[in-house]
Amino acid sequence: MARIALDVMGGDHAPAAPVAGALLALREFGSAHEIQLIGRESVIRDELARQLAGEFADVRDAASALSVVHADEVIEMTDKPSVAIRGKPNSSMAVGLRLQSAGSSDAFVSAGNTGAQMAASAFILRLHDGVNRPAISTLLPTATQPVIVLDAGANVDCSPAELVQFARLGAIYAEDVLGRANPSVGLLSIGEEPEKGNAVVKETHQLLAASGLNFHGNLEGRDIPAGVSDRGPFDVVVCDGFVGNVVLKLYEGMAPMIVGILLKAGVAKSQIAGALAHLDYASVGGAPLLGVKGVSIICHGKSSPTAIKNALAVAVKTVESRMSDHVGQRLAQHDAASVQS
Amino acid sequence: MARIALDVMGGDHAPAAPVAGALLALREFGSAHEIQLIGRESVIRDELARQLAGEFADVRDAASALSVVHADEVIEMTDKPSVAIRGKPNSSMAVGLRLQSAGSSDAFVSAGNTGAQMAASAFILRLHDGVNRPAISTLLPTATQPVIVLDAGANVDCSPAELVQFARLGAIYAEDVLGRANPSVGLLSIGEEPEKGNAVVKETHQLLAASGLNFHGNLEGRDIPAGVSDRGPFDVVVCDGFVGNVVLKLYEGMAPMIVGILLKAGVAKSQIAGALAHLDYASVGGAPLLGVKGVSIICHGKSSPTAIKNALAVAVKTVESRMSDHVGQRLAQHDAASVQS
Repeated sequence: MARIALDVMGGDHAPAAPVAGALLALREFGSAHEIQLIGRESVIRDELARQLAGEFADVRDAASALSVVHADEVIEMTDKPSVAIRGKPNSSMAVGLRLQSAGSSDAFVSAGNTGAQMAASAFILRLHDGVNRPAISTLLPTATQPVIVLDAGANVDCSPAELVQFARLGAIYAEDVLGRANPSVGLLSIGEEPEKGNAVVKETHQLLAASGLNFHGNLEGRDIPAGVSDRGPFDVVVCDGFVGNVVLKLYEGMAPMIVGILLKAGVAKSQIAGALAHLDYASVGGAPLLGVKGVSIICHGKSSPTAIKNALAVAVKTVESRMSDHVGQRLAQHDAASVQS
Repeated sequence: MARIALDVMGGDHAPAAPVAGALLALREFGSAHEIQLIGRESVIRDELARQLAGEFADVRDAASALSVVHADEVIEMTDKPSVAIRGKPNSSMAVGLRLQSAGSSDAFVSAGNTGAQMAASAFILRLHDGVNRPAISTLLPTATQPVIVLDAGANVDCSPAELVQFARLGAIYAEDVLGRANPSVGLLSIGEEPEKGNAVVKETHQLLAASGLNFHGNLEGRDIPAGVSDRGPFDVVVCDGFVGNVVLKLYEGMAPMIVGILLKAGVAKSQIAGALAHLDYASVGGAPLLGVKGVSIICHGKSSPTAIKNALAVAVKTVESRMSDHVGQRLAQHDAASVQS
């Protein structure tokens, strides 16, 4: 049984969407896991009562799997990351993460301010040895299997050594949470030849080739939606957070554009909605912040109840696979190997 | 009447596709313009005879608008850019561009090695004063009007001052060739606030705000397919060539992925092909290399005959709008204004 702390105050549709997401999770998974609702107690209890009296009357009996943990303060989307650490020590983020560092919780899930969640997670959970900066991983749907893109916005100016750290973190995530054996890690560039790219990417290519990882070589933008390059399928795409964030948001914007064009051209919504459902970010829900000692799942600010429910499932899987322990072990092994060589 | 030199030896489907593109242009535009076919004369004459005897028998009489200019050497896709300048002085690229610098041609169009075309164009046509590096502009289709993205791969590590040059070049292109009045220029970043982005982008934001251009502010990846941000529509997207190339190729890869999913789900090809036709790069054909003194149109290596025909139309429009002269004049005006202020 996993104990998952859910930030009820975070996200564009808080508190309704997080509460509904928790209740959807109860409906789908039963009370196998404890969901800890973090935020202003009166707000949470009111919202819970309202939803259990209405749409979620069917799960009223399972609601004992929910607990409520009061947190006085709320981090706004416009707050600077440092607010999560110093300015608002009793925010739902800080309280939820401290539950974990105190051993009373196994994971934290939030659709709130991403920068604040990252800062608070790194500060409260701390980073594994060998990790300079935590990375945001994003799971992107492709024509074949989903791929992990990281960093997706946490770190905008990265060194080659940091990009190699992201590659290691992404490979462990792919193995533990997605079940990919010996995951193939590609480097996003502008041509498949090692000498293509900007200065940082060219140096990173050399480091990855010598890293011991299953290095796929360079990938180009067009390979991501295909999930496969000329050299076969890949699992992880490494890039700096500026490029990753542009990719992620462009990806998000393309499907609605194409759907819009098709609807205008007279294609029936029923024909395309189902087929393209897995391109919706909600189908993934959330992604672990990689490199922290513990589990912190980052959700899209616009998360719907379904997205939150799926993020809770990602949290459970991340806890049960013991991914954070594996990150620590693998980085330690790598360090030992580096020292010996 | 414009005189357009077409590289018959360049591109994945050369010489058939360039020759067919020229003949398509004859069929569509008549003999209003002269098309100069550049490459190995025997190859060109054989291909021309074959196509005029077959698919293009109807334009045999208009074929006098075509001329053939022999060029002994061919630049391969794998050749380094410098080969276009020193290694193969009699390539179809060098010969086509020299026609222009000698006053015998008004524009050069190629689907060959982009790096080589850029190097040869800068070397033979030379750059306008105030331009450090030429930029590849790409026209991307959106849910509304097409937008120009530059640089799309010529310059991977750019300074803020260079990004501002790209902004000026893109604005002139948008005005002259796309007919946009007072074009709105956005800066691609990872958040709309000026303080979002990497170090170069943050500094570029400040420079653009003071540039006298119609600065739209920051754009995010999702704004590109929409063609509009929260602050309204925009015409030009400025980024470095690494990011621009990733964006361009991701864009290229998304539509086929989504079409593939829809076809697999049973949507009829006839329903979607027409609606999505304008997302095909072939509908644009080619884009001017900006910053050179003259006209050099860069086409996709995979260009089909239709793409080449459309690129020839872009060349005519670029010549007739006198874009290159305007670039020179505007940069000189800007220099004068800078000196006075």
